[in-house]
Amino acid sequence: MRTTYTIGRYLVDRLGELGIRHIFGVPGDYNLSFLDKIIEHPALEWVGNCNELNAAYAADGYARIHGIAALVTTFGVGELSAVNGIAGSRAEQVPVVKITGSPASKVAEEGRLVHHTLGDGEFNHFSKMYKEVTAAQTTLTAENATEEIDRVLRTCWYEKAPVYINLPVDIHGLPAKQPKEPLLKEDSAASANTISEMLETLIPVIEKAKSPVILADYQVSRFHVEEALKRFVEATGFPIATLSMGKGVFNEEHPQFIGVYSGKTSPDYLRNRIDHADCMISIGVKFTDSITSGFSQGFKEESVIHIAPKEVKYLNKVYSKIAMDESLNQLAGMLKKREEQSLNIIPVTEQQREEPFYVKDDQALTQKRFWEMIRLFIQKEDVVVADQGTSFFGAQTVPLKENVTYIGQPLWGSIGYTLPATLGAQLADLSRRNLLLIGDGAFQLTFQEISTMLRENLHPIIFVINNDGYTVERSIHGPEASYNDIKMWRYADLPAALGGNKNFKSYKTNTEGEFADALKDIAESPDVLRFVEVVTQKMDMPELLTTLGKIFAAQND
Amino acid sequence: MRTTYTIGRYLVDRLGELGIRHIFGVPGDYNLSFLDKIIEHPALEWVGNCNELNAAYAADGYARIHGIAALVTTFGVGELSAVNGIAGSRAEQVPVVKITGSPASKVAEEGRLVHHTLGDGEFNHFSKMYKEVTAAQTTLTAENATEEIDRVLRTCWYEKAPVYINLPVDIHGLPAKQPKEPLLKEDSAASANTISEMLETLIPVIEKAKSPVILADYQVSRFHVEEALKRFVEATGFPIATLSMGKGVFNEEHPQFIGVYSGKTSPDYLRNRIDHADCMISIGVKFTDSITSGFSQGFKEESVIHIAPKEVKYLNKVYSKIAMDESLNQLAGMLKKREEQSLNIIPVTEQQREEPFYVKDDQALTQKRFWEMIRLFIQKEDVVVADQGTSFFGAQTVPLKENVTYIGQPLWGSIGYTLPATLGAQLADLSRRNLLLIGDGAFQLTFQEISTMLRENLHPIIFVINNDGYTVERSIHGPEASYNDIKMWRYADLPAALGGNKNFKSYKTNTEGEFADALKDIAESPDVLRFVEVVTQKMDMPELLTTLGKIFAAQND
Repeated sequence: MRTTYTIGRYLVDRLGELGIRHIFGVPGDYNLSFLDKIIEHPALEWVGNCNELNAAYAADGYARIHGIAALVTTFGVGELSAVNGIAGSRAEQVPVVKITGSPASKVAEEGRLVHHTLGDGEFNHFSKMYKEVTAAQTTLTAENATEEIDRVLRTCWYEKAPVYINLPVDIHGLPAKQPKEPLLKEDSAASANTISEMLETLIPVIEKAKSPVILADYQVSRFHVEEALKRFVEATGFPIATLSMGKGVFNEEHPQFIGVYSGKTSPDYLRNRIDHADCMISIGVKFTDSITSGFSQGFKEESVIHIAPKEVKYLNKVYSKIAMDESLNQLAGMLKKREEQSLNIIPVTEQQREEPFYVKDDQALTQKRFWEMIRLFIQKEDVVVADQGTSFFGAQTVPLKENVTYIGQPLWGSIGYTLPATLGAQLADLSRRNLLLIGDGAFQLTFQEISTMLRENLHPIIFVINNDGYTVERSIHGPEASYNDIKMWRYADLPAALGGNKNFKSYKTNTEGEFADALKDIAESPDVLRFVEVVTQKMDMPELLTTLGKIFAAQND
Repeated sequence: MRTTYTIGRYLVDRLGELGIRHIFGVPGDYNLSFLDKIIEHPALEWVGNCNELNAAYAADGYARIHGIAALVTTFGVGELSAVNGIAGSRAEQVPVVKITGSPASKVAEEGRLVHHTLGDGEFNHFSKMYKEVTAAQTTLTAENATEEIDRVLRTCWYEKAPVYINLPVDIHGLPAKQPKEPLLKEDSAASANTISEMLETLIPVIEKAKSPVILADYQVSRFHVEEALKRFVEATGFPIATLSMGKGVFNEEHPQFIGVYSGKTSPDYLRNRIDHADCMISIGVKFTDSITSGFSQGFKEESVIHIAPKEVKYLNKVYSKIAMDESLNQLAGMLKKREEQSLNIIPVTEQQREEPFYVKDDQALTQKRFWEMIRLFIQKEDVVVADQGTSFFGAQTVPLKENVTYIGQPLWGSIGYTLPATLGAQLADLSRRNLLLIGDGAFQLTFQEISTMLRENLHPIIFVINNDGYTVERSIHGPEASYNDIKMWRYADLPAALGGNKNFKSYKTNTEGEFADALKDIAESPDVLRFVEVVTQKMDMPELLTTLGKIFAAQND
């Protein structure tokens, strides 16, 4: 007996073609029969989450490591719970396919007052809402399904943005033709002319610069051009800094790496080197308030060559349709490597050279000492995930070793994002060690996803920094206000309560000695999930955060 | 020194005037300084939640008991996390004021790339999204603030619908004039003519009916006309049924109460009495799929007199601007009470008369026996909250004693809603016993709000029905499919892990005897939060749910 090829199968085949291996979400009666298609698919695995927001966050984390991700929820209640996560993917340019299982087409056409609607007979409220936070949207029908699936998935992939697919429950089982052409085509390349013009203009500018510098940001990671960036940096010999949103796109122990630039809160050497560069090659950069200490970058716009994902800009000229790696490769091929002496490079490893670190056993752990110990603990190839709070601002100054991937969310800044994102990131590559750094306030929003990590037998390392409240908020307004207090939990007891059973280890540490012992045991226990409650003082915060709190408060006046 | 009266103070004063005493939400840097206004206000208390969706659910529960509620979140990340809860309030006609603390007006005007935006310079994406799920929206400015506050709050109150207030962080501190007029005015009453016409038409219709019946629904509760309904029912002597969405609007032990009507799944007597009524007086009713077993109501439209919140309809005639209590009072005053014998009333207490209940100590607890024991446990004046799963469909057939309030969400049907809603309902009236009935799948979405209950020293009784997965989904599709499985937690350990300390009691029960012992201990421990994990079998479900599962599956084909 031949099984009919269906629209649902077409959709999951295309997702598989994009490299997706896990699909996140929560079941609901409008998506159940489509979930059967996922479970039956040889290349796909269904990963049920505790709730839909967590599913969206997990998908975002998965996409950051894996290149793209998908999640399925039900109509109304499910998709609206997920929408903050999808908006985050939109802000931070993460390609996520959001699929909503919706009521049958005939039910919608008749405007029936069914469950998960507002009871007003309108079925397009939620797709209109998704239009605000996705790059493409579609409602699949018997007639348009395969073309529309291809259209929105291409947008997702090429624009690195979330897309929305509304899949009525009676549509996915209808017959479809199998795809004949591959989904992705070669990016339309720039004409040879444009490239020549670009090189003719820019090469002399760069060659005559006395203090050139490279500033790279998160789009390097989203468009997967880390290798091209590395070749370019090494071909030129120029110093390179990143912004914190792009932290980790370049090996921070490399002799040309000079730090994570954050405007006026940057260390003096780094700030001077960037702000007074006579030629800045900016690669995949976006300047937002959280990563520039409130737009305090000091360099001159006329000294900047912008290498964007699909074009190059300099002064008033735009060179269109050149992919970022193409630009980098072409420029690297034409530029002579500068001599080191002429460039005044002080690598970040040298700027931050520390005294040898000795653990003081009985000393209460401070933020400063915590981050030093974390610095020593991080290894090559780790994935470091830092929540948008003390964790992100603390981690920003920790130099990362080669091939460490850093995941944060400084633009969207949704606290609690990172815990489910770690589930996604870890599933995306089981071979890499995942470290999550998250504060207690953020943890309380989304921590139930530890249950999914335990169910999937994942082995991330979770550090919960328990400093008794919302510390970023305390730094901005109301340090002692009751609204910044949270309930004190028994954090270290949670993995067991959430169903852990021999597949986790839990620690609670107050002192340097206890934390050092925990780190040692963690390193020796790679085959379980490891959970550390790290107690620090309420108003102890990373130095960068203290400064930023004041800057944000002023921005709100 | 005189303190300046501000826009922020005006807003909180108006909220206080509406009777609001608690405001829910999560702090964020765009709302912190406004939260100061709440904390300083003599009549208001800030209740911080673990996350924004939970805050919206809590506000909805509070409004159902208290009449109206408010919550505050930050821009983007916060308001989008809450939007599913607000959509639920829209669907189920619950008045909730959603306040978003947003970036400073000048930041928005300049389109700066600040945190919690999509980084595209647009600041109205999220208010556009809220337009889809609220009845009125506003962005406050120095010029429009007090008028706009009054406008949207009136809509919230009179339409029983959520509204959206966008409050830029630089606006609430600006000076404002104190309110001179009260916010609420008398509802514009119908003309005496309209009322006379209505009575002249309807009284003969009702008087000549042979088998009149009253069907009441949730709008009776939303518009607070329970007393008028009771007078009307007793003045006419007619039998009364409710729909499950309006369960509890009438004392279910009253001799005229004949049951909760659910279309073709209703008991025979009830179905016949409703479907064959020659005159149905329908009061505040909306027919949706979950409460009518898929639109299977069998009565004739031409026999229905619709008494809606603001009008009365019969055949082609509409009598406008008559408030529901006015209609009921006028009709009650004109109708003679029927003799009981002529009306064929079998009260639900008689239809459901049970054998005396004896606990079988070592017998595993079944759904059937569980609901019988819950029935005996519920007291007058209790608030019973049932999540939209086995709990809702199980509770539907339990007759409620006088003045019991029943909270469910059958139209919007967002699982997990009820746990934070119980926080809100309990805070709204500390003197009433709150019982929450929730399944394990639903519990996992939102359970962290137990922490807030513990922090506030509330004493609800929480029953978590642990039947190992998503049971409603199993009833519809995929009874053994992996996507309907969830991780098994140690539920009974959670109150302690979430910070409970002598202010809770936790129980885990497997047998009837254990459950009976727990119920006895619960009744004797009124001054603590009580948490019961009730273990039942995976595929054991209330009879009504088994039937409904098949009906929903057919609707999705």
